[in-house]
Amino acid sequence: MKKVAIILSGCGVYDGSEIHEATLAMLALSKNEVEYDCFAPDKEQYHVVNHLTGEVADEKRNVLVESARISRGSISAIDKLNVSDYCGLLLPGGFGAAKNLSDFAINGDNYSVDEDVAKVIVEFHQARKPIAALCIAPVILAKVLGARVTIGNDKATADMLTGVGATHVNKEYNEVAIDEKNLIVTNPCYMLADNIYQVSLGAEAAVGAMLGLMKK
Amino acid sequence: MKKVAIILSGCGVYDGSEIHEATLAMLALSKNEVEYDCFAPDKEQYHVVNHLTGEVADEKRNVLVESARISRGSISAIDKLNVSDYCGLLLPGGFGAAKNLSDFAINGDNYSVDEDVAKVIVEFHQARKPIAALCIAPVILAKVLGARVTIGNDKATADMLTGVGATHVNKEYNEVAIDEKNLIVTNPCYMLADNIYQVSLGAEAAVGAMLGLMKK
Repeated sequence: MKKVAIILSGCGVYDGSEIHEATLAMLALSKNEVEYDCFAPDKEQYHVVNHLTGEVADEKRNVLVESARISRGSISAIDKLNVSDYCGLLLPGGFGAAKNLSDFAINGDNYSVDEDVAKVIVEFHQARKPIAALCIAPVILAKVLGARVTIGNDKATADMLTGVGATHVNKEYNEVAIDEKNLIVTNPCYMLADNIYQVSLGAEAAVGAMLGLMKK
Repeated sequence: MKKVAIILSGCGVYDGSEIHEATLAMLALSKNEVEYDCFAPDKEQYHVVNHLTGEVADEKRNVLVESARISRGSISAIDKLNVSDYCGLLLPGGFGAAKNLSDFAINGDNYSVDEDVAKVIVEFHQARKPIAALCIAPVILAKVLGARVTIGNDKATADMLTGVGATHVNKEYNEVAIDEKNLIVTNPCYMLADNIYQVSLGAEAAVGAMLGLMKK
């Protein structure tokens, strides 16, 4: 049975993984009879956002511990990820991708990617295994691999990606950008989707394209 | 457009709403072009569980604030719920339903239901609007309405429900128990489902049956 590794970045759109995107990516995998294991960096979150008020809370939370909420407790630290156990990698969106897995939300065009996350991405890439990223998570692949990706159609964000050597292509919520050379699949999800059903269509399209690349 | 109220109980299976069940119930509504608003009690959680270790953490979190993670910030305190704005009510599962919305997980057959939650359920019931509950959340409807429900096939739990005057019927992960007299729909979700795809089938079946009852 095929198995995909998922990198989570916390639990909640404003300071972690976007919950719907992560859940619906898991659903799309499960529907296709693909298993998955979850991973996350074992480190403190950049910050904690009160999702009711939108304000930064005076709290500390750990990315791995909070990510475990989305994966129902079944999760490992990202430095335990053995690329040979998986046939693909998937990164859901949410600000956690831009605050915990990278610092894109903080440093803009001067951004960098968490070292352990970058290492895993390079390993999947070198092993010629496909990588899918949703919503804002493609900024990570843009930086690490200089890939051809979409984050929807926001010009300011797209310009920052071309600034780090990536290629940006505009896509709608139900479309995927496929970089066949680098085996990268990206979809805008909540960057453009108006509702959760549209997000499910994006996640399904991304997972479908990723599985297609696995066959090559 | 039809609109359903969803009662959340935190964010995470061990101390709040089960994230997949809540998300997939929202997806099933959205797929059927039904809108939803989320509500939760504005009170401290019974406790906080570290979902990585399963241990109780020395922390305090608020049910409404944590529930806002699942609803992407759009949520209101349950005492603001106006039943006339909605054509149905939905309660996802997770231990939050048995720790924060009721004390079923703590007090077993001597359990009680949060007063604000019970009030809302009675109002929907009196207005002849259907109520759906997933996983362990049917225990709440069993106590408040003495309804005919399923929590799957666990005999010890089922016996506690008959003990408070409800009727229990065994159902599989993809089946719903329908109480036509009380307009109650229940499905076991993760009480029986082996994977997230099976949970999505349960949530879809429950939402479908709920919409069917709305037409009567």
